[in-house]
Amino acid sequence: MYIQMNFPVEAMRKTNQEIKDEKILKEILSGATICRLAMMDGERPYIIPFNYGYRDGCIYIHSAPEGKKIDLLLQNPEVCFEVEDEMEILTGDRACDWTTRYRSVVGYGTVEIYSDEQSKQQGLEAIMAQHGAPELKEFNPKNLKRIVILKLSITSMTGKQSSKW
Amino acid sequence: MYIQMNFPVEAMRKTNQEIKDEKILKEILSGATICRLAMMDGERPYIIPFNYGYRDGCIYIHSAPEGKKIDLLLQNPEVCFEVEDEMEILTGDRACDWTTRYRSVVGYGTVEIYSDEQSKQQGLEAIMAQHGAPELKEFNPKNLKRIVILKLSITSMTGKQSSKW
Repeated sequence: MYIQMNFPVEAMRKTNQEIKDEKILKEILSGATICRLAMMDGERPYIIPFNYGYRDGCIYIHSAPEGKKIDLLLQNPEVCFEVEDEMEILTGDRACDWTTRYRSVVGYGTVEIYSDEQSKQQGLEAIMAQHGAPELKEFNPKNLKRIVILKLSITSMTGKQSSKW
Repeated sequence: MYIQMNFPVEAMRKTNQEIKDEKILKEILSGATICRLAMMDGERPYIIPFNYGYRDGCIYIHSAPEGKKIDLLLQNPEVCFEVEDEMEILTGDRACDWTTRYRSVVGYGTVEIYSDEQSKQQGLEAIMAQHGAPELKEFNPKNLKRIVILKLSITSMTGKQSSKW
């Protein structure tokens, strides 16, 4: 999949910190377990963190079928997302020697809400695989009924890493 | 400081997961090192992660004085922020037994950008204290010149925790 790199505005200012390699972007997305979605709530943004699974250019999230985030996504499915690699503080003797080692991905995409059994199965499989348990593919039908799957199709993203990485 | 709890919409649906104790909200804000800000970028949201310091109802962030986020904040200083406590995956034999242990805070506030020396000094002190080094209060004047301090005054926030905490 080609992921359009049309969002390098901030990173371009410090080009040495921009991650251009799509393989590394995918590595970050495949390695973390929490993503944050910012969605529109009227005229202001609203963020929530989620556990997720990344597969083939999409982020899968499970959710209760009702609630604030579902209402907001039905009104406006365009979101901004953010994922971080393990972050580490590098200390020093003087305050100005302190720095942070990090990698992060910020991107945009569109969320579709799925409530059919096959999509839920696929979404939950992606989430279990992301958490290191790809062999766990059987889900209690009663629990499946209680959820929906949010599928975020990534339209663009960019990565940034600390100068010390 | 009284923090208005006017944003419990999602949490109210699962009242057992809502954190109402202001002391715990402050504990979460004082214990983490990364916050994410969602700001408005035209008609869509934009998130970025930051290291920060929390003090007296405000989140302090240091930033270069120019760039995308400064431009966006000058246009619209109203933001949504998010902070997480240490998150832990609780595994199980079956997929549906897996769950997550977490605490998070989501809130709203207004960002002011400060470029005077005293504000920078205070902001950086809050950031160093948050990272466990309150004794480091001397900053290289050359570095101070290169930054601004973003002061996010929290207007409302709510907390959520996993049912297993």
